[in-house]
Amino acid sequence: MSQSKIILGAFVPGVLTGAAWRLPEAPKDSFRSFEHYRYIAEKLEAGRFHSLFFNDGVKVDLDPGLEKGPNSVRWDPLVLAPALATVTRHIGLIATASTTYNEPYNVARKYASLDHLSNGRAGWNLVTSLGGGENFNRSEHTLHGDRHERAEEFYDVVSGLWDSWDDDAFVQDKASGTWLDSDKLHLLEHQGKYFQVKGPLNVARPIQGHPVIAQAGSSEAGIRLGARVGELIFTAQQTVEESRDFYENIKGQAVAFGRSRDHLKVLPGISPVVGSTQAEAEAKYQRLQELLDPQSFLSRISKFASLDYDLAELPFDDVVPLPPENFSTDSHPSRQKLVYDLIRRERPTVRQLFDKLTAGGHRVLIGTPESIADDLQHWFEAGAADGFNVMFSGLHAGIDDFVDGVVPELQRRGLFQREYVGATLRENLGLPYRHNRHR
Amino acid sequence: MSQSKIILGAFVPGVLTGAAWRLPEAPKDSFRSFEHYRYIAEKLEAGRFHSLFFNDGVKVDLDPGLEKGPNSVRWDPLVLAPALATVTRHIGLIATASTTYNEPYNVARKYASLDHLSNGRAGWNLVTSLGGGENFNRSEHTLHGDRHERAEEFYDVVSGLWDSWDDDAFVQDKASGTWLDSDKLHLLEHQGKYFQVKGPLNVARPIQGHPVIAQAGSSEAGIRLGARVGELIFTAQQTVEESRDFYENIKGQAVAFGRSRDHLKVLPGISPVVGSTQAEAEAKYQRLQELLDPQSFLSRISKFASLDYDLAELPFDDVVPLPPENFSTDSHPSRQKLVYDLIRRERPTVRQLFDKLTAGGHRVLIGTPESIADDLQHWFEAGAADGFNVMFSGLHAGIDDFVDGVVPELQRRGLFQREYVGATLRENLGLPYRHNRHR
Ligand SMILES: Cc1cc2nc3c(=O)[nH]c(=O)nc-3n(C[C@H](O)[C@H](O)[C@H](O)COP(=O)(O)O)c2cc1C
Ligand SMILES: Cc1cc2nc3c(=O)[nH]c(=O)nc-3n(C[C@H](O)[C@H](O)[C@H](O)COP(=O)(O)O)c2cc1C
Repeated sequence: MSQSKIILGAFVPGVLTGAAWRLPEAPKDSFRSFEHYRYIAEKLEAGRFHSLFFNDGVKVDLDPGLEKGPNSVRWDPLVLAPALATVTRHIGLIATASTTYNEPYNVARKYASLDHLSNGRAGWNLVTSLGGGENFNRSEHTLHGDRHERAEEFYDVVSGLWDSWDDDAFVQDKASGTWLDSDKLHLLEHQGKYFQVKGPLNVARPIQGHPVIAQAGSSEAGIRLGARVGELIFTAQQTVEESRDFYENIKGQAVAFGRSRDHLKVLPGISPVVGSTQAEAEAKYQRLQELLDPQSFLSRISKFASLDYDLAELPFDDVVPLPPENFSTDSHPSRQKLVYDLIRRERPTVRQLFDKLTAGGHRVLIGTPESIADDLQHWFEAGAADGFNVMFSGLHAGIDDFVDGVVPELQRRGLFQREYVGATLRENLGLPYRHNRHR
Repeated sequence: MSQSKIILGAFVPGVLTGAAWRLPEAPKDSFRSFEHYRYIAEKLEAGRFHSLFFNDGVKVDLDPGLEKGPNSVRWDPLVLAPALATVTRHIGLIATASTTYNEPYNVARKYASLDHLSNGRAGWNLVTSLGGGENFNRSEHTLHGDRHERAEEFYDVVSGLWDSWDDDAFVQDKASGTWLDSDKLHLLEHQGKYFQVKGPLNVARPIQGHPVIAQAGSSEAGIRLGARVGELIFTAQQTVEESRDFYENIKGQAVAFGRSRDHLKVLPGISPVVGSTQAEAEAKYQRLQELLDPQSFLSRISKFASLDYDLAELPFDDVVPLPPENFSTDSHPSRQKLVYDLIRRERPTVRQLFDKLTAGGHRVLIGTPESIADDLQHWFEAGAADGFNVMFSGLHAGIDDFVDGVVPELQRRGLFQREYVGATLRENLGLPYRHNRHR
């Protein structure tokens, strides 16, 4: 617990929220309605959330259950975030972009532009992507090792490009006709294994120095990258002990990279279902679960975790068989590990596993504002989290429940901000301004 | 003249407007202020302009005169356009993106997203770019032929991805739990020389079917691409005869591709300087010209046109020497041709050439609302233009002068719309909805 208060980020829903779209009260067509996103952004800003987090991918998952629910069809977050920047003033806008399927010059440019447009509220969730090669001239998704090596160099190029100009390079002196001071221009001249990039970037230096770097790797290589460059670390953790281990591990590695422990914030995901009584919350949860199609969901999990059996084919009340001791050579070992660990630790039935995983590996918290606040407080004070990234379970009711119930409870306890404290996302998160390396 | 009324687009300034930034009344820091762009967008929408056009590049021009004025440092148009979509309701948003330095999947996604966000107002100015290879792993800008071949295939992939889903694919039937109808999904399975892209796109089909395609090539290959796929054709033309030839040429080629003449609209650029009298307009123009640095500007032109001498080294009142008969093997023959033709046709002095080219090859129109309306009417009725893309000469005064002076004059003559006629950019331009090829 390095931070005096809890940080709250939000997954921006519209998609990926299980079966919430089937609730009678859920707005239709929300995934293609700006008014829906505007509602969410305004509500969460009123609730003093630190950031909106837009996850993303570069393909449609054609897995079993494609037709059963929203999965990967959504607007580009780098189009949605600028639009939301104009209807909000404080909340951070953290958009995902892939280092595997982009060019660093383009990525540096877009985030720098977003940072200007939003007056210093941009963040980049740096991902290597969970697939998509088939849409980018490749027959396979690039191998795990390669992807991370490229990601490391990609970050170096992007951050180097952000330092192309000193903060005061654009003097715009009307009298002398001097638009810029070319002594304040720095060519990058990067020559690496994956990239040759000369620079300079054709955007002025971002307002925050650099946009905030969010990162969510959970493999060894992913954690190393997070420890080196991440500032907000998203993670899926099921127990307070495991989360504390993760927290200490990544902060320790960051210190070994010469960074301060306080300059990266760890945010496990949670999926709250809030009721005014425990029974009401349970009922809300049951209502959501009943709307999910278990067969396609279980097949999806089986594929997601590269199990060698299909959970959908097992009886619902059977105990899930133990997975093999070793991980496969799958390109996403961390997802596999999450599911394997859960099966080993809890020996769940198929139904229990199904319940555990409906939030994509994040904890489902079913309770009252008080009991959920208790849980968050416990994790925060135990040093298992600097805050939480919240995945809402209903549109828009799930958001309203949290903002109107859990947030005031956390504020009453002095655990959550009543007002935004800074002007930029960095300031609000307690992260330092990033000075130009050429200073 | 295929259209009963003139189409007006606007270059979105902030940069690239010569020395206008030096005027005492010009707002400072406009190139990094959303309020500046919002002002322009709102003013031009009030003036019933059809579209905002955001030009773009992927490098900083380190040419002579870098420090003398804004050139290539600007926000990414695909970040600015979504933001402006939220503060406007009718005006089209045409952002430039390069086929040389992007991946088609990413481009298809972003424009489809922008089209949704703006309720059908997105356009893509498809360019092969004027340089930038040094920022994208290449030692040189890709050769002219290659770039166009790639551009042709790039367009095919992007437009194919836009047809990934039928318009009614996302049924979202709450009762049965059917999110989408997978019979309405179409894989692209593109296997070409430059791209292998499987699809589907992870965005629903755009509101307009396809966003409007703008194109501005002027080489032979560029015009062929425009004739095949362009719907708005931007061009720089100095005389009504040349423009009519260009107009007939590209429309004729479009017809040979099986298209209707009316489905591409030709918009030469103009740079108006408006005064309430001719003398006032001339004075405004002189005031702007005096703020330009002629030496760096002339060196820039010399480089731009690949002249084999530096205009900046010639006396200001000397006649410009004739360029060689043949074009060099420069990768941008069309820019060279524009300058060569001008020199041959008009045998200008250095000063006259300087005056002619301050708007980047577009005609500078200095006059009253009436005389400028006369000129536009003449070009329009002579079949030399379906409309004009306007490059303003001052911030914000140059925009106000045009919208408050020339627009009402054109409206009085029945040549320009008093209200937007349609809901989408396509409808406003008189272009047909693009049906899904899988229909
Ligand atoms: C909370 C969370 C959110 C994530 N969001 C995304 C995302 O939006 N897009 C993506 O491609 N990967 C996402 N991931 C995956 C990781 O960022 C990472 O790319 C992936 O796990 C592969 O790296 P690894 O092998 O280190 O785990 C997310 C992971 C977590 C834990
Ligand atoms: C009015 C106009 C606007 C243009 N805008 C851009 C632009 O924003 N970005 C760009 O890279 N090229 C721009 N161009 C250049 C062309 O789009 C084209 O890419 C270039 O001329 C090379 O193709 P070409 O050889 O066919 O001329 C513009 C050209 C004209 C005439």
